[in-house]
Amino acid sequence: MSLWRWKSSDDPREQIHFRARLARYFPISGWLPYYNRHLLSDDLVAAIIVTLMVIPQALAYAILAGLPAITGLYASMLPLLAYTVFGTSRTLAVGPMAIVSLMTAAALSPLYAAGTPSYSQAAATLAMLSGLILAVMGLLRLGFFANFLSHPVVSGLLTASGILIAASQFAGLLGIGGSGFTLIDQLGHLVTHLDALHWPTFALGASALLFLLLMRRAGQVLRRLGLGPGAATFIVRLGPVIAVATTTLLSWWLDLPAKGVNVVGDIPAHLPPLALPSFDPSLLRDLLLPAFLISVVGFIESVSLAQMLAARRRERVAPDQELVGLGTANLAAAFSSAMPVTGSLSRTVINFDAGARTPAAGAFAAVGVALVILFLTSLIAYLPVATLAASIIVSALTLVDLPGLQRTWRYSRSDFAAMCMTILLTFVEGVEAGVMAGVGVSLALYLYRTSRPHTAEVGRLPGTEHFRNVQRHDTEVDGEIALLRIDESLYFANARYLEDTVYALLADRPSMQHIVLICSAVNLIDASALESLEAINNRLKDSGITLHLAEVKGPVMDRLKKSDFLEHLTGESYLSTYAAWTDLRHRLHDESLAEATTSTPPRES
Amino acid sequence: MSLWRWKSSDDPREQIHFRARLARYFPISGWLPYYNRHLLSDDLVAAIIVTLMVIPQALAYAILAGLPAITGLYASMLPLLAYTVFGTSRTLAVGPMAIVSLMTAAALSPLYAAGTPSYSQAAATLAMLSGLILAVMGLLRLGFFANFLSHPVVSGLLTASGILIAASQFAGLLGIGGSGFTLIDQLGHLVTHLDALHWPTFALGASALLFLLLMRRAGQVLRRLGLGPGAATFIVRLGPVIAVATTTLLSWWLDLPAKGVNVVGDIPAHLPPLALPSFDPSLLRDLLLPAFLISVVGFIESVSLAQMLAARRRERVAPDQELVGLGTANLAAAFSSAMPVTGSLSRTVINFDAGARTPAAGAFAAVGVALVILFLTSLIAYLPVATLAASIIVSALTLVDLPGLQRTWRYSRSDFAAMCMTILLTFVEGVEAGVMAGVGVSLALYLYRTSRPHTAEVGRLPGTEHFRNVQRHDTEVDGEIALLRIDESLYFANARYLEDTVYALLADRPSMQHIVLICSAVNLIDASALESLEAINNRLKDSGITLHLAEVKGPVMDRLKKSDFLEHLTGESYLSTYAAWTDLRHRLHDESLAEATTSTPPRES
Repeated sequence: MSLWRWKSSDDPREQIHFRARLARYFPISGWLPYYNRHLLSDDLVAAIIVTLMVIPQALAYAILAGLPAITGLYASMLPLLAYTVFGTSRTLAVGPMAIVSLMTAAALSPLYAAGTPSYSQAAATLAMLSGLILAVMGLLRLGFFANFLSHPVVSGLLTASGILIAASQFAGLLGIGGSGFTLIDQLGHLVTHLDALHWPTFALGASALLFLLLMRRAGQVLRRLGLGPGAATFIVRLGPVIAVATTTLLSWWLDLPAKGVNVVGDIPAHLPPLALPSFDPSLLRDLLLPAFLISVVGFIESVSLAQMLAARRRERVAPDQELVGLGTANLAAAFSSAMPVTGSLSRTVINFDAGARTPAAGAFAAVGVALVILFLTSLIAYLPVATLAASIIVSALTLVDLPGLQRTWRYSRSDFAAMCMTILLTFVEGVEAGVMAGVGVSLALYLYRTSRPHTAEVGRLPGTEHFRNVQRHDTEVDGEIALLRIDESLYFANARYLEDTVYALLADRPSMQHIVLICSAVNLIDASALESLEAINNRLKDSGITLHLAEVKGPVMDRLKKSDFLEHLTGESYLSTYAAWTDLRHRLHDESLAEATTSTPPRES
Repeated sequence: MSLWRWKSSDDPREQIHFRARLARYFPISGWLPYYNRHLLSDDLVAAIIVTLMVIPQALAYAILAGLPAITGLYASMLPLLAYTVFGTSRTLAVGPMAIVSLMTAAALSPLYAAGTPSYSQAAATLAMLSGLILAVMGLLRLGFFANFLSHPVVSGLLTASGILIAASQFAGLLGIGGSGFTLIDQLGHLVTHLDALHWPTFALGASALLFLLLMRRAGQVLRRLGLGPGAATFIVRLGPVIAVATTTLLSWWLDLPAKGVNVVGDIPAHLPPLALPSFDPSLLRDLLLPAFLISVVGFIESVSLAQMLAARRRERVAPDQELVGLGTANLAAAFSSAMPVTGSLSRTVINFDAGARTPAAGAFAAVGVALVILFLTSLIAYLPVATLAASIIVSALTLVDLPGLQRTWRYSRSDFAAMCMTILLTFVEGVEAGVMAGVGVSLALYLYRTSRPHTAEVGRLPGTEHFRNVQRHDTEVDGEIALLRIDESLYFANARYLEDTVYALLADRPSMQHIVLICSAVNLIDASALESLEAINNRLKDSGITLHLAEVKGPVMDRLKKSDFLEHLTGESYLSTYAAWTDLRHRLHDESLAEATTSTPPRES
């Protein structure tokens, strides 16, 4: 059944099936045929608000990535159109994003000088690689890979990059030039270049920062002054637009560029040039790992955001198709002289709140950006970089989640360790190292934990068919029957530990005649664990003790039947612990009688 | 409580405690005070047999490692004494071993030319690093690390290195010089150098090989001729000794060295010179990873062998102290101009069968080797290398376990994949790459499996308190209550998968009012999974569905109580599925009545 079988069938069921398949790969076909005037007006309003927001953000994130400011605007046009066709979230606003920009700068600056044409071309190459990786992962349904970035690692990453991004912009705010990509480099740069402080820039930047910080708290004041909550939120959200407009006018009026204040400068008033990224093999090799990490981090941010908002409106997001959507957006960026893009947290929330109903809102925002480029670039030329730095600082600080650190510490020390490792490595070595260290520590701790599984000797809750840990509950036990519950899948990392546990129990309980391994929590017995079970069975047999199993799950039992273990097992495999208990109690009782009258060996079952 | 507190106490309990502690770190103190004449005679017999065996093996493995033959004998003296003091296995025969020799050659030959003094010194350095790694791992109780080498990976490694070692020795058998460390290199070398075939060497080597292969099957014949099984086995085991003695005499009688047959040559008749290994930092850095892998592979081989034999005699082996024992053996090798050592499979089995009772047998074998060096080296000089090659080929082929491949294929495809990856990489890239690939594939497959956990909707087995998979058993179900059993710990890699599973169930069952997550197999809920549970709880709440938990284990519940999840949970946490079932059935029944008479929202519990 080929995807590309464009045939007209008379069978309506066939047609529905075809449409569903089409909508899976081209989500736009799921909503465009039903597009109407109401949806259009909702989407248009949202698009206008998002366009106002995206202009300063796009400029700022391009500068953060070490690229000409215009690159940010280029990255806010074609990628949005691509996502409109291939994306499944109705409200995700795609484009430049702070952490991705930081990672872009970290990947490219060892290779080329920031601001040069080679650097810009390498940014497009990075977008291409990232797009290919995302699209291929999506087509191969590899979205689950993202699951290996645990919540504490992502949260640690956001906190650390928020601080890192804010610190990196302080240099811009003070009128000092670029700095490094680790916190130490940045603070070192700041301290050693403090004598280069440019007072007019600092005055302007600090005022903008103060204004933006105050605006974040202005919501309550405005509502107390009688504004509706919607209007108040809207004005608060417009803070960055107001700051940009005011400082740009000020800069033009006082001719601040002539006084040494750094401004965005002339921007060519034309649409993004379609161009090929570089295909230099050594460059591709250098950028492969950064592209992969940018893809994963960007995807996780986007998809969790999209899922959160979709859940509020009972919509669904398909993670694997989201990979394709973000992949095509990055490919569009690559071939329009732009930079890596992903879902933007702040703009997505604004798009959602402003009432966007379909991905068409994104396409309209792209048109809005195009109009700004064509008609308003002469104004943007006067926009001071310090204003952009101030707006980045404010939005970067919202990424910092200190209560999350405390909550994680209380709940789980090992999650906290992964979180701290991520933060520390992000500060010291950058975002890439932070992500890898976080994933590494999470996996290592998980494996360590499963390699020493919890086991519990259980006893019967008197009068019931339930069996619980003898150390936590008042239970009925039998000195000749040991019931051992294993609280973990049995696999190579803990197979030997199981042997030790059983042998220790054996040494502790000289009267033991039967041991029942309760496998209710055993979801897998791999080949190594099977060897260990065979070793345990043989050793217990030599000591005259019978080994039984209980509550083995269906899939595990199916597997065991493929080996000859069950034939060698000295005891039985019981459906429930209760069945094992009653049968063995009965058997031990009968055996005592039998032993009194005959000398039959009692334990051959 | 320091280990080194040597005090004499009058309290006998205190003394017993002290002795136990001493025996933990110096296992020799556990048996030497009780040594007697009977143990001595048993150990002496075993030592004589092992000495006969160790001479050809030690020479052969030294040549395999690219070292002068005498190095193998050096490695069979001081290391055995060190292990006698610090080892916990009563029968493990320490010394040169085939796979470790192969790995030694692979590590050293890129650095120095084989046979040079620098190469020999680097071998001692490798032994030192390996010894330090083992000893430190032992003191830090890191023996569990070895568990990450799964049984299929070890088995694949043995099979592949058996073939690799046998192939590498064919060159020696044919009279062609040394070759590479991958199967391709070796076969290539063999084919391209076939014209250098030395007929007298080949005739001698092929005869020895044929003799040794026949001897392996001679046991049955000898027993049919009336020999007792013990005597027959003994004669079979002496095969290599007979081959060595015969071909050496032949070589001396016909003066084969003059005819171009490669022999062991003159060996200095003195005990190993005590010498320092190299401490060159760049060499140490180059050898660190190989030393680690040699340590792990050697340790796993030794400890599984020692445990298997100890179990037969109801003795115990302490894996962490075994690390210390093997570590000191390697340190002893490093400072006596030797090479990395570990437990030898063939000699250990012979030592055990010959009746060794304590590690003193190893010390006596070391004395035996010393006597051979002092008095018999003039004889050994005539021993043809082709005979050694033949004996290595025969013992290497015993490592190959093809039925194991088939057994693993039948039992588990993912274990089989790890096994094949190990074999393939060992062939193509060598033992180091094979080990790492095997561990990597095993872990990746385990993580992949746990990232898509098995879940089952369960129903009541009619008339019982037991609940089983509705698809496998005839069960009683209720359209308004969904009982979902989760067969895996919930952690970051599967947290999102759980959300998808629950939402899919939700979409499938429009009549559902309650969902119970049965956590009998959930051994951990980490911070990411907690976030997912909170998301599920909130989303179900919005849809008017109540979320319950059942059979949450003690440790998991303790953890959950540290968060505020249980306060937000819309439903209850039940001790058993049966309790959940009866309570909810009762509640739904009451609710139906209530709804009929009042309009109270029914699901606020």
